[in-house]
Amino acid sequence: MRSKIPDVVIRRLVTYLRILTDLDAGPDDYISSAEIGDLAAVNSAQVRKDLALFGEFGKQGVGYPILGLRNELIEILGADRQMNIGIVGVGELGTALARYLTSRKETTPNYRFVVKGLFDVDPDKVGTEIDGVPVRHLHELEQVMASNEIKIGVIAVPAQAAQDVVNYAISKGIKGFLNFAPVRIKVPSHVRIQNSDVTSDLQELGFYL
Amino acid sequence: MRSKIPDVVIRRLVTYLRILTDLDAGPDDYISSAEIGDLAAVNSAQVRKDLALFGEFGKQGVGYPILGLRNELIEILGADRQMNIGIVGVGELGTALARYLTSRKETTPNYRFVVKGLFDVDPDKVGTEIDGVPVRHLHELEQVMASNEIKIGVIAVPAQAAQDVVNYAISKGIKGFLNFAPVRIKVPSHVRIQNSDVTSDLQELGFYL
Repeated sequence: MRSKIPDVVIRRLVTYLRILTDLDAGPDDYISSAEIGDLAAVNSAQVRKDLALFGEFGKQGVGYPILGLRNELIEILGADRQMNIGIVGVGELGTALARYLTSRKETTPNYRFVVKGLFDVDPDKVGTEIDGVPVRHLHELEQVMASNEIKIGVIAVPAQAAQDVVNYAISKGIKGFLNFAPVRIKVPSHVRIQNSDVTSDLQELGFYL
Repeated sequence: MRSKIPDVVIRRLVTYLRILTDLDAGPDDYISSAEIGDLAAVNSAQVRKDLALFGEFGKQGVGYPILGLRNELIEILGADRQMNIGIVGVGELGTALARYLTSRKETTPNYRFVVKGLFDVDPDKVGTEIDGVPVRHLHELEQVMASNEIKIGVIAVPAQAAQDVVNYAISKGIKGFLNFAPVRIKVPSHVRIQNSDVTSDLQELGFYL
């Protein structure tokens, strides 16, 4: 099942989950596919089609029970599992990401992403710490990973270093990456990489201005 | 025309443009819809449908001329217009974004996004500068905006301050925002806001791990 769902559907399910979580609803609150679509910038037929892939959650004329649907989405997405993260590159961006994720963990109940490792190659950075997490040399990746069950590598190194860093992390067993370096990174098919690209976000916005 | 194209199509066009730009192609290089789809994680029929909205660019059995299609996408997206940016909030994230955009401007030919204003309310930050751009008090937004033709506000303030900052910026005439605060911000219909949400990126990635 998991591998058959198209990526674009997964992305929309994540958006629906965020919307439902933001709503702060009570046990008797319902939402229509039109309302979800409105908040997600998707048409209501698409919302119904996406959710119907996983069963019949909605009631005709009433909509979806917000908490029930949220829990279903959490289950579908596996969004109740803690997932430990290692950030490679603790320059300004890496530091900002580490602090951001740590503060989300503190302020959001059940926030599942936990920064367990920070890595750099700069001797001035190795040995320092950020919000209690020590910065280790990249060569300690395998050891730190194993003892902390790190599943996701966040790449916050300069563009020219990104491919090498990802290759190295893959060789040490990391299978999922969130890449902030402004470069397209090649990975084998068993590895998953997600790009977070400020320029693409700005390009999309710029179209409307 | 501009307002009739669905948002999801625009997002895909931005992805196609990035892919074509990354390819570093020569004048005789072609690409098939299957190859574009493969790089964009979209099926080839969708690629053909998206591009057909704007005319017949491809040749049967040969594909699309890479440079020609790239130029068409630049035109459709208006991606050749310089667009000036103001960043509100120069904490770690705002500082990282400012430096990132400035370095992209220096290393990427025709990079269109230019940081022209930095804003904060912290007296320790106002008066400092980042890569030559002075940090001004948020109350100077209107004046700095007007003299620098700032079109996009990048929101890098804490979640609890984000809505107020956006309201203020809208009242001063900004119509486009890229929001990094982990909160859903309400804007009137003539204003466009794009959310960049690390947690959603991680959620999507986590599904596959």
